[in-house]
Amino acid sequence: MRSIGIGLLGCGTVGTGVVRLLTEQGARLRGRLGAELTLRRIVVRDPAKARDRAVDRQLLSTDPAAVIQDPAVEIVVELIGGVEPALQYVLQALGAGKHVVTANKALLSSHGRELFAAAERAGRALGFEASVGGGIPVLRGLRQGLAANRFREILAIINGTANFILTRMTDEGRPFDEVLAEAQRLGYAEADPSLDVDGIDAAQKLAILLLLGYGVEARPKDLHTEGIRQITPLDIQFAREFGYRIKLLAIAKDRDGELEARVHPTMLPEGHLLARVDDVFNAIAVDGDAVGPTLFYGRGAGMMPTASAVVSDLLEIGREVLAGTAGRSPVVAWPAAPPPVQSVEELMTHYYLRFQAVDRPGVFAQIAGILGRHEISISSVIQKGRRSEGGVPVVLLTHWARERNIRQALKAIDALPAVLDRTMVLRIEDEALE
Amino acid sequence: MRSIGIGLLGCGTVGTGVVRLLTEQGARLRGRLGAELTLRRIVVRDPAKARDRAVDRQLLSTDPAAVIQDPAVEIVVELIGGVEPALQYVLQALGAGKHVVTANKALLSSHGRELFAAAERAGRALGFEASVGGGIPVLRGLRQGLAANRFREILAIINGTANFILTRMTDEGRPFDEVLAEAQRLGYAEADPSLDVDGIDAAQKLAILLLLGYGVEARPKDLHTEGIRQITPLDIQFAREFGYRIKLLAIAKDRDGELEARVHPTMLPEGHLLARVDDVFNAIAVDGDAVGPTLFYGRGAGMMPTASAVVSDLLEIGREVLAGTAGRSPVVAWPAAPPPVQSVEELMTHYYLRFQAVDRPGVFAQIAGILGRHEISISSVIQKGRRSEGGVPVVLLTHWARERNIRQALKAIDALPAVLDRTMVLRIEDEALE
Repeated sequence: MRSIGIGLLGCGTVGTGVVRLLTEQGARLRGRLGAELTLRRIVVRDPAKARDRAVDRQLLSTDPAAVIQDPAVEIVVELIGGVEPALQYVLQALGAGKHVVTANKALLSSHGRELFAAAERAGRALGFEASVGGGIPVLRGLRQGLAANRFREILAIINGTANFILTRMTDEGRPFDEVLAEAQRLGYAEADPSLDVDGIDAAQKLAILLLLGYGVEARPKDLHTEGIRQITPLDIQFAREFGYRIKLLAIAKDRDGELEARVHPTMLPEGHLLARVDDVFNAIAVDGDAVGPTLFYGRGAGMMPTASAVVSDLLEIGREVLAGTAGRSPVVAWPAAPPPVQSVEELMTHYYLRFQAVDRPGVFAQIAGILGRHEISISSVIQKGRRSEGGVPVVLLTHWARERNIRQALKAIDALPAVLDRTMVLRIEDEALE
Repeated sequence: MRSIGIGLLGCGTVGTGVVRLLTEQGARLRGRLGAELTLRRIVVRDPAKARDRAVDRQLLSTDPAAVIQDPAVEIVVELIGGVEPALQYVLQALGAGKHVVTANKALLSSHGRELFAAAERAGRALGFEASVGGGIPVLRGLRQGLAANRFREILAIINGTANFILTRMTDEGRPFDEVLAEAQRLGYAEADPSLDVDGIDAAQKLAILLLLGYGVEARPKDLHTEGIRQITPLDIQFAREFGYRIKLLAIAKDRDGELEARVHPTMLPEGHLLARVDDVFNAIAVDGDAVGPTLFYGRGAGMMPTASAVVSDLLEIGREVLAGTAGRSPVVAWPAAPPPVQSVEELMTHYYLRFQAVDRPGVFAQIAGILGRHEISISSVIQKGRRSEGGVPVVLLTHWARERNIRQALKAIDALPAVLDRTMVLRIEDEALE
């Protein structure tokens, strides 16, 4: 039986999952491919480290060039993460005539188009399904299964850590810091959780969705990004009273040829399918002009789910290798004119505003007056006179309003002596609100 | 710009959707493909019939051979439906060197493997994403994105008509006949609804899922199939009291190398994601051993959703045509030894049983005695003494029980003089019940 040689760069959590799938499920994978995916080499930093017993220590080495140059390796799997040196290794591997599979969202989101061009020049295949949504085949969905569509909207829960924290905060009424500590104990959050809880990871994945779905090149740091640190149990409770749940969403919307692209905690109607996506699960809702609403759901991270995507890429490239067709099609086709990304100041949406104000007659009238002068009209109000430190919360939802106007109004409102704290702002994803 | 010629066999609802996408979205599709998908010919039964204005009447003809033999046609799209003559046309088209895209579930479910072999012999591509789940790219999911997995379980809502009817019955408490008539008025159900409401359509699609997911060839009529005609508002209400919703599911489960495969109305816990899939929407939950639970959701039928899948297939084959690689990989790879399909009599699951019995002391003891003698133990009972014509309903849920035992017990129970009507049996999909 034909054997296709595989070399791994990196053998952390995902790499170990890949090794386990290739070794423990070898018979099944041979059946599906009609050939053997054979692990030839595994490059690691520390060969002496204790590892899963599926990892054959004889394959370990510390020299990336040994994998990249090995004639017995046909597909290089890059699982180092981060931009450098991963970028150089991938480019070198393509240059050396290897096909490449990577799960590296930082790399794809910063150098995607460059890598696609390098693969095309080299006539080699590049697989990257694992870079967004872990085991969920959503990138294939955008590139292939839904390729006939204009994507009116993509709403994505693509950070499992943030979703876990918000789910626990919602179900148990606990504060952010406490649930974050629990997530860290459970291994769902890093010691430095900022990539996850500040929305940075979600913004990287959004950049990849923009590239695949719209042909748009955007740097993650240029995308409007807010995390979930500022969300309080009070906001979650108010959201519930209005019939919403709070989720960290990555959002792309095609608005008459301009593209909204943003990451922030969002209030979703309880009946929305994404509002039911809980714990570490991810889901990507794609609304296409022909297909209508679709949803892709599953585990967005973790050893075996991510390995599932990596090995599925290996099987697909393996099939193409057997047919002599691998790398002959360009990775993606680009739309003629990618839409420009809109400034977030131009955004029109519904807002949730929570003011912390002195409980005194006339304060609400002051706030409402400033909103009115900025063309912001109110659709609902909750003012319960609930006692809490430093005044009472006043919560209102707006009709369609422009982000720029909201910002200007809040600058004026937060300067009022009766307003005791910075106003909390959440955007609402509810086209049906008007 | 390179042009790829397309010929349509059939121009009903889906065909019209394909024409609309190709004509109205031509610029966008060119951008994604880097070539033009050009409609060359459309074969219809009645060229004089009134049609959507997107359909260029000059392309119409009545002779399938004219499309199949036309050198300007590179991809033939079969949208006639049914087995014959569609089968002959597809085989002729492949034989004439055309790539083929079809949305035909009857054809795929009865002759899938034959068609895959014919495509492989001819070295031509065969696209069939639209045959299951309409616009939802679930077949690509099984073949590619999740290919590294053993599929522990596939649970699928894949008949929109039946799901619409059950949703309305559930939300509005109305009987089957009344909601069916409404579905017929709305165009969601045919004048003869049996393909949809008797589970036949779902069984065809299940056969395709078995072929793609497990390499198993099964004739739809050999799969255990029950429809939804017998479901009453009373059952829906009892299900709700136990915390369940009733959905028509197509089910495949890998049970230690044997395969459960069945279509029937099923009680699903309200918290299950599939329990929230309502109206005409479809969803396929795929549980893979590496990836864990996943879900694919969207519109499973209709003009534009189905056209979305057909045109996405055209784009993919188009890309391969441009690269000179179309038809070079086999359509599917087969597992070495497909698992055998288990007889439904061997099924182990939880059951809902509704007896219609005379309201008299001792009747329940009689029923419980017979169940006990067949090794069926009861987990919950509702016996409310609700009045209804012909006795009172006694409802119970069982622990794990074997289908054969259930059938034998019910034969004895339904013969009791105190039991007035045939006992209603529903299977429960709830691994957490024990």
